[in-house]
Amino acid sequence: MTTREVLIFDTTLRDGEQAPGNSLSPEEKLRLARQLDALGVDIIEAGFPAASEGDYRSVRDIATEVRSPVIAALARCTERDIELAGEALSGAARGRLHVFISTSDLHMREKLRTTRDGVLAMAREAVRRARQYTDDVEFSAEDASRTDPDFLCRVVEAAIEEGATTINLPDTVGYAMPAEYAAMFRDVRERVPGSDRITLSAHCHDDLGLAVANTLAAISAGAAQVECTVNGIGERAGNAALEEIVMASRVRGAAVAFQCKVESREIYRTSQLLSYLTGVFPQPNKAIVGRNAFAHEAGIHQHGMLQNGLTYEIIRPDMVGIPHSTLVLGKHSGRHALERRCQELGYQLTGEELATLYQGFTALAERKREILDEDLLALLHESFSDAPEEFQLSHLRVVCGSVTATAEVRMTGSWTGERSARGTGDGPIAAAFAAVSEILERQLEVVSLSLRSLTPGRDSVGQVFLQAKIDGKSLTGHGASTDVVEASARALVHALNKARHADKLEASSLNSVYLWGV
Amino acid sequence: MTTREVLIFDTTLRDGEQAPGNSLSPEEKLRLARQLDALGVDIIEAGFPAASEGDYRSVRDIATEVRSPVIAALARCTERDIELAGEALSGAARGRLHVFISTSDLHMREKLRTTRDGVLAMAREAVRRARQYTDDVEFSAEDASRTDPDFLCRVVEAAIEEGATTINLPDTVGYAMPAEYAAMFRDVRERVPGSDRITLSAHCHDDLGLAVANTLAAISAGAAQVECTVNGIGERAGNAALEEIVMASRVRGAAVAFQCKVESREIYRTSQLLSYLTGVFPQPNKAIVGRNAFAHEAGIHQHGMLQNGLTYEIIRPDMVGIPHSTLVLGKHSGRHALERRCQELGYQLTGEELATLYQGFTALAERKREILDEDLLALLHESFSDAPEEFQLSHLRVVCGSVTATAEVRMTGSWTGERSARGTGDGPIAAAFAAVSEILERQLEVVSLSLRSLTPGRDSVGQVFLQAKIDGKSLTGHGASTDVVEASARALVHALNKARHADKLEASSLNSVYLWGV
Repeated sequence: MTTREVLIFDTTLRDGEQAPGNSLSPEEKLRLARQLDALGVDIIEAGFPAASEGDYRSVRDIATEVRSPVIAALARCTERDIELAGEALSGAARGRLHVFISTSDLHMREKLRTTRDGVLAMAREAVRRARQYTDDVEFSAEDASRTDPDFLCRVVEAAIEEGATTINLPDTVGYAMPAEYAAMFRDVRERVPGSDRITLSAHCHDDLGLAVANTLAAISAGAAQVECTVNGIGERAGNAALEEIVMASRVRGAAVAFQCKVESREIYRTSQLLSYLTGVFPQPNKAIVGRNAFAHEAGIHQHGMLQNGLTYEIIRPDMVGIPHSTLVLGKHSGRHALERRCQELGYQLTGEELATLYQGFTALAERKREILDEDLLALLHESFSDAPEEFQLSHLRVVCGSVTATAEVRMTGSWTGERSARGTGDGPIAAAFAAVSEILERQLEVVSLSLRSLTPGRDSVGQVFLQAKIDGKSLTGHGASTDVVEASARALVHALNKARHADKLEASSLNSVYLWGV
Repeated sequence: MTTREVLIFDTTLRDGEQAPGNSLSPEEKLRLARQLDALGVDIIEAGFPAASEGDYRSVRDIATEVRSPVIAALARCTERDIELAGEALSGAARGRLHVFISTSDLHMREKLRTTRDGVLAMAREAVRRARQYTDDVEFSAEDASRTDPDFLCRVVEAAIEEGATTINLPDTVGYAMPAEYAAMFRDVRERVPGSDRITLSAHCHDDLGLAVANTLAAISAGAAQVECTVNGIGERAGNAALEEIVMASRVRGAAVAFQCKVESREIYRTSQLLSYLTGVFPQPNKAIVGRNAFAHEAGIHQHGMLQNGLTYEIIRPDMVGIPHSTLVLGKHSGRHALERRCQELGYQLTGEELATLYQGFTALAERKREILDEDLLALLHESFSDAPEEFQLSHLRVVCGSVTATAEVRMTGSWTGERSARGTGDGPIAAAFAAVSEILERQLEVVSLSLRSLTPGRDSVGQVFLQAKIDGKSLTGHGASTDVVEASARALVHALNKARHADKLEASSLNSVYLWGV
C-alpha cells in the first residue's frame, strides 16, 4: 500500500460542542481554535452560524483571527442558513461552507417529511447557493450509512455537479460496521462520475465503540478527509477521537497507510485545554489522553522491572506532549522560574497573564509546599480569564457540618465599595452561592458541579467545575483552591463574570442546543 | 454467514481491577461477581491468586459463592502460581485455570530473559500441571499480536497437546489493526493441529481505540470466546468494553454474525455498581453506559421534533436497563414505597438493608424536596456497606473560607462513649480529616478525592469518592450528602471502617498492583 495524505477536519467546536455539558462561549471557542491551529489540523469546523447568535459570532471571530487552517461553517440546505454561514465566513483567509441534508428514508420521512426528489432538489440548490460564497463547498449526506445506496449515489452525483469539492458520508448514528462503511466509500467512488475529482470524507460516531475503526476503514477505501473531535467528544457517544486517528498513523503508519500533518506533541495540551474549558475530563482509561493511558503512571515503575518501555507501551508519553510530573516550584520560586516552567509546558504568557498567574502562584505556595506541573496547569487555565473580572470575592466565611450551613460573603464589583451578604443552605457550597446570589441580585441555578483533586496529599489543590443557569443563561465556571468551598465560590464568580460579559455583548443566546447535525 | 454462539469472559475483576484507581476489596469483588452472574456472563475471571492474599481470598470466596458461571483464576507458568490458583478454585462448581506466558521476542528478551525453547518448555509444563487441578485450562500467549507467527503456532500446538481447552491470543499492548488481528486467528486455525477442537479467545486493549473492532474482527475469524471488562476498564487505555461487544450483537446481529447469552437489561446496573465501588465513572460520551450515550438525555426532546426515536437512536435505553429519571419519592413516602421503587430499579433488599436505606432516605428527604432515582441509587450503593460500621460520625462542625479551616468532629466507635477532636487544615475537608485522624490515631493520606453532583439544583446530593492510604493500606470510600464536607467525612469514615475490617481479617495486602497480565 502507498501512504496517502489525509486531511484532519476537526469538529470539536461544532459536533463536539453541541453535546450536553460541552457548551463554550465564543471567547473560549476562539482560544480553542488557536490551539487547534497549533495542533496543525487542516480544517476547523468553527460552528453552525444559524444555530445561535453566539455561534455566528464565534465563527466570524475564528475566521478573522485564525488564518492557517481552513475555517468551515455548517448550514442546513436553506437560504437563510447558507447566507448566515457565508457572511460569518466572509473574513476568512480560506472559508468552507458545509451544507448537509439527511438522505436516509427514515430521516427523510420522520424528520424532513419530504421525498427523495425533494431532498435531491434541496441539495442541488444548496450547493449552488453555497458556491456563491466560496469555491470550497462540502456536502454531507446525513445518515449516509443507513441510506439506500442508489439514492446516495444520485445525491452525491448531483452535489458534485453543482460544485461540491468535498463529499462527506457520515455514520450519523454510529450504526456501521467497518466492512460496511468501507464498502459504501468504494461503492460511491466506483459508481459516481466525478468522484475521483473531489475529496471523500468520513465522519463517524461511537455508539457501538467503532468510530475510529470505521474511520480507518473509510481511509483504506479512499476517504482523504476524516472528521473527528479532541477527546472524542460529541453527540451521544461522541465522534471519532482525533488523537486516536493521528496516533494510529504514527504508531502503525505502514499498516494504516496514511499520514497527516498534525503535530502530535500538541495533543495532550489540546486535550487538557478542552477539558479545562468544559470541565469534562476523559475517563482514566481513555486512549492516548486518559490519566492511565500510559503505563508509566501505574505501579509499574515501582517494580523497577521495565528494562524497555516498549514492553508495555506502544507510545512514548513525550510523543503526545505529556509533561513529566516532577517537583518544580515552591514558595521561594521567583517570577522568572515560573515563566520558564510555563514556557517548558508550552505556554507563552503576556506580561499581564504572567502577573495574574504569579499572584495565584504565590497564594498557592503559601498553602502548598510543592507546586507540581498539574497545579501549575490548573492555575494557568484559571488565569486565562476570558471575561473581565468585574466581580471579585474578597472574603468568605462558612460554618457547616451537623448544623445548617451559613456563609458570609464579601465581594467587590463595579459598585462603590464592597457588598456583603449572609446565606444559608443545605451545605456550605449552597450557602455560599445563596450569599453571592443575594449580593449580585441574580437568579442562579447550579446545573452540575464536580470536583477533582489533582495531586495527592492533605494540601491538594481541588478544581471545581460548575455549570450554572444565570438569569436563564447556561454558563460554565471553574475555580481552584485548597479549600473546596472557596474553589466553588470562585467557580461561581467566574461564571458570573462571564454572564456579565455576555450581557454586555448582547449575545441573545450563547449556548444553543440544537437537533441538527451530521 | 451463520450466527455463532460466543462466550463472554469477563475480566473486570482481574485485568480491570489491576489498573490504577480500580482496586476493590474482596467483599466488593464478591458483590460485583454476583452482579456479573445476574448479567449472565459465561466466565468470570475472579483474580490472580498469587498476586496477593486479598486476590487469593476473593477468588476462593467467589468460586464458593457464585455457582452459575465458570470461575477462572490467573497464574503465571510457575509451580507456586498454579498451585495457589488451583487451591483457590477448589470449591468452584466449574473452575478454570488460566496460565499465561509471553511469547513475543521483545517480552521474552526484556521481561522473561529466556529463549523460545525455554518459553515452550514452561508453557508445556504449566498446562500439564494445571490439568492436575481441572479439565478446563486456558492458555494465553501474552503479546501474541507481536509474536513471530511460526513460534506462536508452535506454542499453541504444544499447549493443546498438553490439554489446554481454550487458547487466548491477546493484543496485550493494543497494537493490532483489525485485519491483522483477524489474520492471526485464521493463521492459527489453519496451521495448528487440533485447533478445531479447542476454543480460540480474543483479548484486546484499547491503546489505539480499536479494542472492540479487533474483538469483532477476531470473532469473524473464528474466535468463540471474547475477554472484556465492564465500562472497558483495564490496564492503560483499558480492555474491550463488554457492553459494546454485547450491544453490537443485539443491534447488528446479522452483520456481526454472533450472539451471546448476556442479559442486556443488566448492563447499566452492572456499570453503575462498578462505578460506585471504584469511584470512577465513564466519561459522558462513553458508548452505551455514558451519561450522554442516549440522545433522549440531551436537549432533543425539548424541541419536540422526534417523531421516531430511531432517527437518532440505535439502542433504546430500556434495552440496557437505564431507569427513567422520574420524580418518585418525597419526605412523605413510606418504607413500602421505597422498597417498591428499589424493586423496580432491580434491587432486592434484605430487611436490614431496607432499614438502613430508609434511615438515609428520611434524612435526605428532610433536606431535599424530590428524591430522584439517581439519589436513590446513591443511597442504595452507600447503604450496601461491605464492612461493619464500627466508627460513626456523630457530629461535625467546620469553619472555613478566608480563615484557616477548623473542624470539630465527634465520633462513636468501639471505645466507651464518644471521642472528639479539633483539626485544622488548608480547607474544610483537610481540617475534618485531621480531626478524624486524631480521634482514631491512624495515619491517613488522601490519594485522590472527587465529587459528583447528581441532580441539578441547590439541594443536590453530592457524592464524594476518595482513595486513601490508611496506615499504608490503600482503600476507597464514598459518602453522599447535600453537604460536601460531610460527604467527604463520611467517605473517609467509610474507608476507615473498611481498613478496620481488613485488619481483623489479617489480609496482609488487600490491594496489589502487579505488573503481569495479558
